[in-house]
Amino acid sequence: MKSLSKAAETFGAVVRLDTAAERLIIDSGRRVVGVVARQYGQTVTVRARKGVVLCAGGFIFNDSMIADYLPDCLENASKTGTDYDDGRAIRMAQAVGAAVQNMGSSEISTPVAMAIAAPSVLVDGTGQRYINEDAYGGRLGLASRQRRRNGVFLVFDEHIHTDYLAVRERLGVESISALAANRIMPRATPTWVCETISELEESAGIPAGSLETTIDLYNKFAAKGEDPLFHKEPRWLRPLRSPFAAIDLRDANYRMFTLGGLRVRPSGEVLDLDGFEIPGLYAAGRTSAGIPATNYVSGISLGDGTFFGRAAGTHAATSNTG
Amino acid sequence: MKSLSKAAETFGAVVRLDTAAERLIIDSGRRVVGVVARQYGQTVTVRARKGVVLCAGGFIFNDSMIADYLPDCLENASKTGTDYDDGRAIRMAQAVGAAVQNMGSSEISTPVAMAIAAPSVLVDGTGQRYINEDAYGGRLGLASRQRRRNGVFLVFDEHIHTDYLAVRERLGVESISALAANRIMPRATPTWVCETISELEESAGIPAGSLETTIDLYNKFAAKGEDPLFHKEPRWLRPLRSPFAAIDLRDANYRMFTLGGLRVRPSGEVLDLDGFEIPGLYAAGRTSAGIPATNYVSGISLGDGTFFGRAAGTHAATSNTG
Repeated sequence: MKSLSKAAETFGAVVRLDTAAERLIIDSGRRVVGVVARQYGQTVTVRARKGVVLCAGGFIFNDSMIADYLPDCLENASKTGTDYDDGRAIRMAQAVGAAVQNMGSSEISTPVAMAIAAPSVLVDGTGQRYINEDAYGGRLGLASRQRRRNGVFLVFDEHIHTDYLAVRERLGVESISALAANRIMPRATPTWVCETISELEESAGIPAGSLETTIDLYNKFAAKGEDPLFHKEPRWLRPLRSPFAAIDLRDANYRMFTLGGLRVRPSGEVLDLDGFEIPGLYAAGRTSAGIPATNYVSGISLGDGTFFGRAAGTHAATSNTG
Repeated sequence: MKSLSKAAETFGAVVRLDTAAERLIIDSGRRVVGVVARQYGQTVTVRARKGVVLCAGGFIFNDSMIADYLPDCLENASKTGTDYDDGRAIRMAQAVGAAVQNMGSSEISTPVAMAIAAPSVLVDGTGQRYINEDAYGGRLGLASRQRRRNGVFLVFDEHIHTDYLAVRERLGVESISALAANRIMPRATPTWVCETISELEESAGIPAGSLETTIDLYNKFAAKGEDPLFHKEPRWLRPLRSPFAAIDLRDANYRMFTLGGLRVRPSGEVLDLDGFEIPGLYAAGRTSAGIPATNYVSGISLGDGTFFGRAAGTHAATSNTG
C-alpha cells in the first residue's frame, strides 16, 4: 500500500482523508461528472473531468443490504472488513441506474484451523463426510456453513491432536493461526473425547452406526493411502484409532465478507440495467462484482482492486471527454 | 381463472388482449400514472388514476437476466412458464427505481417421478445419501441439482420397480405423472441392472465399497422401519434386495422458473432501493419476490397472484390520489 500510495502521489494524485462520498453528480447527458461528499460536517463537491472510479469495498456492514441479499450472514458470522464496507458506492451507482451482480455470494472462512482439519474427518449430522478435509479454507467454510443446522463435527484421534499441538507449540499460536488462514479462531479444543466411535455418536447425537460406518470406510482406504470419495491428498491420510475426539462446530463462527457488486466491463466501466456503459463511471475492487463467483480465494480482492483499478484509471484518463 | 375473469368483468374491468406494456409513466412528483404499451404495432398509452399493479410473471425467459441472477439455469433446465415470463415488468419497475429481492432463487423440479423415488435410495457420486427420498419434489430437485456434477443416482430393486410399473399401469402414465408432480418426465427406466451393489458401483463409477456401506446401513435400519439419517416415513422403508437397478440422473433435466422479483410490502406497494414506496406502483405474483425464499412449494405463485394481487388492487382503489 505504501508503494502504491507513493506512486499515486508522485503522479499528482490529491488525497482527501476523512471525506465520505455521498452521491454522484450527473449532467444532462447522464454523464457522471463529480461527487458530493461530507468532510468534517461540511458538504464538498468534487468535479471529475475524466470520470469517477468507485473503489470503496463491499457491503458487509450495511444491514439492510445484507438482509436483502445475504440473510444467512445475520447469524453466527463475523463480519470482516472496515466500517466503511457499507455498500455506499454500490448504492450511489444504483441511484444513477447501475446494475449489480452476484450479490448473494460471500467469502466464508473455515470454522476450524486448517492444520487440524486436514488429517481429520469432517462429517455432518448424518455422520457422513461431505468434503476433502484438506480443501481450501473458503471451500471448506462454504460447505460446512451450508450444513451447520444439520450438524458439523470434526472427528480426529489423539495422534492427530498431539501432532497439531506440537506444530502449534513449535510455531507459536500466532504463526500457526496465520498459516491456517484462520486468525480469529484456531479452534482445536475437543468437545468430546471417547474410547469408541459409538460413544461419540451418542454424545454428538449422530445416528448409531452411521459414523462408525463412515470411519470404517475411511480407515480401510486411508490405510492404503487412498480417499476415493473426496480425493484428499495421501499425506493427510492415516486411519483414526482410539481414543477419539471431536469438535462440535454447530455454533462455530464464520468470517464473512461480500463478493457481489456493480456490474462492470474488464475496463472497469459500470453497466446499467440494459447492459450499456454509464458514461464517466467506473468501479473496481469489492465495489464491483469482479472475479469471484460462488467462492472466494485469498487475494482476489487485491487483484480486483489493483489490476482492475489500474485498468479503470487508465481508461478514464485516456477517454475523449476531458 | 374463468370465475376470476368473470368477476373482474362484472365489476367493470376492461381487458386489453394482445397488448404488451413496455414502460411506466411517472409524473413530476415521481408518481406512477400510467403505462406505455404496444398493441398490433401501435403505441398506446393508458392513464392510471389510482395506480398500476404489475402482475406479469417472472423472468425465466429473459436470457440476460438469467445470466446475471441464475446462471445455473443455463444448462439442463427446462424453462417453465410462458414466453411472456420475460421479466419486463420487473425491468420497467427497476427503471423507475424499484428494488428487487431473492433474484437468485428458483423452483427446481424433481428429476425423477416421486412414486419411484420415495421407496428408493438416492445417492451422490460418493455413494452417500443426501436427503429423505420421500421429500417434497422441489426440495428433492434442489438438493439433487446442487450435486449433479458430482453424480446423482437413484438406486432401487426389482421389487420397487415392479410396484412402480403396476401403479403406473393401474393409473395410466398421464395420471401417475401428474400425481408425481412431474408431468414432463416420469423417468423410471433403469440405466443399469446388477446382481450385486459392487457391480453397480463399478458401472456408475461410485468408489468401491461406499455404496455397499450405504445400502447395508440403510437396510439394517429399514428392516426396523427406521431411517435415523434422514427420517423418511416408515411406509417407504424396506431393505433393498438383489437384483438391483439404478437410474443415472447426472444429465437429468430439471423444470425451473424464477422466484425473485420486485420488493413489495404485503399491500403490494413496490419499494425503492431505500425502502420507500414508489407512489402508484404495485406488484403481485411472480413479478414480486413474494412468499417463497430458497424453495418453492406448489401453489405459492397462485397465492402470490390472487391473495396479494387482491390486496394490491384494494390498496390502489382506496388510495387517496384519484
